[in-house]
Amino acid sequence: MLKVGLLGAGRIGQVHARTIAAHPRSELHSISDINGEAAGTLAVAHGAEVRSTDEILADSAIDAVLIATSTDTHSDLIEAAVRAGKAVLCEKPVDLSLERARACRGVVQESGKPVMIGFNRRFDPNFAKLKAAFEAGEIGKGELLSITSFDPAPPPVSYIKVSGGLFRDMTIHDFDMACWIMGGAPESVSATGSSIVDPAIGEAGDVDTAVIVMRYADGRLVVIKNSRRAAYGYDQRVELLGSEGLLSARNVLEHTVEKLSAEGALTAKPEHFFLERYARAYVAEWNAFVEAILDGAPIPVSLEDGINALAVADAATRAAQSGGAVVVQGA
Amino acid sequence: MLKVGLLGAGRIGQVHARTIAAHPRSELHSISDINGEAAGTLAVAHGAEVRSTDEILADSAIDAVLIATSTDTHSDLIEAAVRAGKAVLCEKPVDLSLERARACRGVVQESGKPVMIGFNRRFDPNFAKLKAAFEAGEIGKGELLSITSFDPAPPPVSYIKVSGGLFRDMTIHDFDMACWIMGGAPESVSATGSSIVDPAIGEAGDVDTAVIVMRYADGRLVVIKNSRRAAYGYDQRVELLGSEGLLSARNVLEHTVEKLSAEGALTAKPEHFFLERYARAYVAEWNAFVEAILDGAPIPVSLEDGINALAVADAATRAAQSGGAVVVQGA
Amino acid sequence: MLKVGLLGAGRIGQVHARTIAAHPRSELHSISDINGEAAGTLAVAHGAEVRSTDEILADSAIDAVLIATSTDTHSDLIEAAVRAGKAVLCEKPVDLSLERARACRGVVQESGKPVMIGFNRRFDPNFAKLKAAFEAGEIGKGELLSITSFDPAPPPVSYIKVSGGLFRDMTIHDFDMACWIMGGAPESVSATGSSIVDPAIGEAGDVDTAVIVMRYADGRLVVIKNSRRAAYGYDQRVELLGSEGLLSARNVLEHTVEKLSAEGALTAKPEHFFLERYARAYVAEWNAFVEAILDGAPIPVSLEDGINALAVADAATRAAQSGGAVVVQGA
Amino acid sequence: MLKVGLLGAGRIGQVHARTIAAHPRSELHSISDINGEAAGTLAVAHGAEVRSTDEILADSAIDAVLIATSTDTHSDLIEAAVRAGKAVLCEKPVDLSLERARACRGVVQESGKPVMIGFNRRFDPNFAKLKAAFEAGEIGKGELLSITSFDPAPPPVSYIKVSGGLFRDMTIHDFDMACWIMGGAPESVSATGSSIVDPAIGEAGDVDTAVIVMRYADGRLVVIKNSRRAAYGYDQRVELLGSEGLLSARNVLEHTVEKLSAEGALTAKPEHFFLERYARAYVAEWNAFVEAILDGAPIPVSLEDGINALAVADAATRAAQSGGAVVVQGA
Repeated sequence: MLKVGLLGAGRIGQVHARTIAAHPRSELHSISDINGEAAGTLAVAHGAEVRSTDEILADSAIDAVLIATSTDTHSDLIEAAVRAGKAVLCEKPVDLSLERARACRGVVQESGKPVMIGFNRRFDPNFAKLKAAFEAGEIGKGELLSITSFDPAPPPVSYIKVSGGLFRDMTIHDFDMACWIMGGAPESVSATGSSIVDPAIGEAGDVDTAVIVMRYADGRLVVIKNSRRAAYGYDQRVELLGSEGLLSARNVLEHTVEKLSAEGALTAKPEHFFLERYARAYVAEWNAFVEAILDGAPIPVSLEDGINALAVADAATRAAQSGGAVVVQGA
Repeated sequence: MLKVGLLGAGRIGQVHARTIAAHPRSELHSISDINGEAAGTLAVAHGAEVRSTDEILADSAIDAVLIATSTDTHSDLIEAAVRAGKAVLCEKPVDLSLERARACRGVVQESGKPVMIGFNRRFDPNFAKLKAAFEAGEIGKGELLSITSFDPAPPPVSYIKVSGGLFRDMTIHDFDMACWIMGGAPESVSATGSSIVDPAIGEAGDVDTAVIVMRYADGRLVVIKNSRRAAYGYDQRVELLGSEGLLSARNVLEHTVEKLSAEGALTAKPEHFFLERYARAYVAEWNAFVEAILDGAPIPVSLEDGINALAVADAATRAAQSGGAVVVQGA
Repeated sequence: MLKVGLLGAGRIGQVHARTIAAHPRSELHSISDINGEAAGTLAVAHGAEVRSTDEILADSAIDAVLIATSTDTHSDLIEAAVRAGKAVLCEKPVDLSLERARACRGVVQESGKPVMIGFNRRFDPNFAKLKAAFEAGEIGKGELLSITSFDPAPPPVSYIKVSGGLFRDMTIHDFDMACWIMGGAPESVSATGSSIVDPAIGEAGDVDTAVIVMRYADGRLVVIKNSRRAAYGYDQRVELLGSEGLLSARNVLEHTVEKLSAEGALTAKPEHFFLERYARAYVAEWNAFVEAILDGAPIPVSLEDGINALAVADAATRAAQSGGAVVVQGA
Repeated sequence: MLKVGLLGAGRIGQVHARTIAAHPRSELHSISDINGEAAGTLAVAHGAEVRSTDEILADSAIDAVLIATSTDTHSDLIEAAVRAGKAVLCEKPVDLSLERARACRGVVQESGKPVMIGFNRRFDPNFAKLKAAFEAGEIGKGELLSITSFDPAPPPVSYIKVSGGLFRDMTIHDFDMACWIMGGAPESVSATGSSIVDPAIGEAGDVDTAVIVMRYADGRLVVIKNSRRAAYGYDQRVELLGSEGLLSARNVLEHTVEKLSAEGALTAKPEHFFLERYARAYVAEWNAFVEAILDGAPIPVSLEDGINALAVADAATRAAQSGGAVVVQGA
């Protein structure tokens, strides 16, 4: 039984709390949050205790921590946790600063403790199926990967300002997806963006719509399309052209009912947002972490993976500014 | 918190045990089964006690029982349970004998205790969505309902022999679905069957492939297609033609990945069998029962409903033998 | 070059005129119609002559006639044409009277001239593909065939009164489709109908909504669903369950555009009615006739086939009245 | 009746010959080709005459010419034709040299004769439907357009060498599609390519797989994905994200038959290549030209449009070489 401390009781922390509590091999031991009321409510719901982060890290009964706090605390908490001997599952991204993330890696390596980064989409059964089919050789050699990733609606501009920008905040999921499927980081990246959804996002120095193109040394290509707004909800598709065919993972729809009328055939929208779409992925992600820690299985998403995605996001940010392709500095 | 005794620890009892234990407002108190080992294993998995059925019924701490035993015990156990003051959720069918089921109803009515029948498909979110859209008037008046219901593979002939026949054993789900969507039992039913999948089923006096047609007094029609075997798995579709359009609930597929190759476009099979396909339905069914008992919400599938479906099954059985339409004797 | 006389310049005659004129190996020589103006307009459009039916039959320069007149003239015209030495393509049905159709067969056999019946759906590329896949063994043995066949809107009651009833007028296409796919006529048929779309159809002694079930001697089953009205247009689907899988031919849609919005995903309706849906089928049908006559290829839809379908329609008409299964008298 | 001279009797010339001959308002008068045998065979098939190009241009009975010769002759023939007073429909591209194409425009403007460029895809009914829905405001403001355009297999390297490169030869269709849907040429374009399908293409100085990103002055984006090889055939999709939804035109499939088996659900491939996929588009294109010339309707694809697409192709070619975004010089 893995005893777990949860750092952060916000929206995503609540998802993790439920998952940790429901897993037969993990126990939600305690919860910390700067908002004591949020921590308290969540603790009551799952029979856990409210503690400070320091208390959680100091408690030798706790085996692992799940870091679901704001991004600017991730590196510090990872370091503190591994120094306290905890296994760590940390939400993405590792950090907004590539340099800081690399420093964090040094501390983690010294500690020898396992750290996993929460790229939840790898655990979506459809994307996992696509990758498995690809690796089984079903479409030959991969040549051109396309990722469509649109959110239902942009976050508040106040969030945009501290987000690190579209590429580090939103596209980072797609960068990880690309690196995971294609096997490692690309050689170079170019990016084109605009703030066509909301000019205020542009005024805040960010973009809300973007196309990112990645090129591997052997000529393989990746294209990622992002928008902060899709009127129909959450659009999450992956498509891989190979030498012998094409694999695509389509959206997961809300239901299977079709209505045929004089207007045409109406079917369901995609599941609305990440909490719905990736509900099963969060469960599978946690299960993978538990098995890695308790059974010694490999960590499926390493800190290296998190740094790789950040390195690509950094390059993309510079590419969007310069208008030219930028070489990616490996993890 | 609803304290629950589970009668029956077989395949479907195991599904219910998990659901009861996971529900925040119910507790799996104890389990009985003629196979003590099955009961024991299940009890350990969920922290419940092993008891005899009599002990469970006699224990005033237990509020409700879920009857998941073999069909021939259903009526007796329903009667014993309501006499012992328990609320009951009983797996379908109520009984293989319509007369016996009606007698059971008398006992239940006298007891005043709530009894719900486990027609799980009503709780499938897709079928529920179809019915809600229909009732919202989206396709006008319902005229012709079609149900496709194929199992992946026939059960052993030994099971067929005690099953009550295809119509009481398998089609009964579809009869309930039809009565639920169309509002009550039809006026008459005709049925055509054959044992084309397996001659041994024919030798046992049953059919494995059948088409059943139901007619309502106002002319509305229902057609049900059944087969004990679909090489691709479990086929569960509903389609309703109305005066202003058509609603259909398609199969739920195993994943959303498509492979395009020189052979064509390959997508997933339907979810394989009822445990997978109706996993969410079982959870919703149990939740509805809990809310009915704890909050006084109406019982969503009454004993009357169970008797209605059985009355149609009886008529269909006779219709298949006579080759003509048979009038349905109401519940 | 096949020189052709067209008898009948109505809606379907106009379709055939265009096809005959466009075919590189046939020439539309002359056209007759009791409505001289209709014949004249059509003749001008295609550079043909207007003639009386007698003149056409008497003209030895004409090799073949296409009969597209009203149903009650079909048998007489087939007989007159073969006696005049013409090859014949006659629209369905052969006749409303099975006895009359059989008498016609006698005359045709005596003449030795080729007669083809216009069951256009056999030439739809999708249904042809389904049949070819089935015959190639792709789903093993055929067990349960389902045909959905809904028209967009009922014809006027005046037409209904002379139509011979739903089964001879509309379902006859589906009976031919079933016999074509399953290989011959069934042993028995039962039918359930109602006039739920329009009570006036019921007052005229006919039904507008029906389910027909056919049984073959070896236990194979067919179910046909008919409605005179589908608010979304023309619904034409075929689905065949076999021992190793299921083949289905879905509707042909008006276009491939999908609109995703907050309401869901909206795609196209089926092609609206038979002129659109079976446009390619009419061309393929005519080509098959030309090849049969000019090259001695087998007639793909024989007069026997037409009589078979009529025999099933007759049995279905009686079955709907009696409420029981009726044995089909073979062609 | 429009009398037409066809210049070029190759693969695409043959398509046009059939279309011209079948159109009720045009007549295929004569055909020229440097390969006299090809011209002769085609002329016989359609009852046209074989002539030299000079004879066709000199014949005052001929109203229009369709130029279907090799690309390097297009500008010269357009100029000669308009000087001879003919209306012109010329296959794409106008020229491989943007400068030459602009010079050609000068001659055409001076002549006052109508010239249309054969961007056939605009006449595909699905793309036309998408554009019409977009212009009707169904998805609000267009923000991000995606075009997928894969050929079944690369042409011979000998063709690649004289093709002008992927962007001028293949992507030019997509550039026109983008300009057509978005309304004019973009401000800048960037492109990333590789020769991953066939290294010999790279050795010939070209790419076979590419992603092109276009940016409009107001921030709207376009992404085009190209590959010279798709093992499953011809992939032609368009997808437009707008402020209120997403419109997509999916591939046209070979048939509507689905096979469900233990392997999954197998449906048809896309129609194989441009002759099949765009068969209806070629007919509609020719019809639009005939109406423009005979009825004075506007030319739907102008020489300006052809030059615009070439200007974008030029910029893309330079962008792929430089690795940076290149400003597009308007038509």
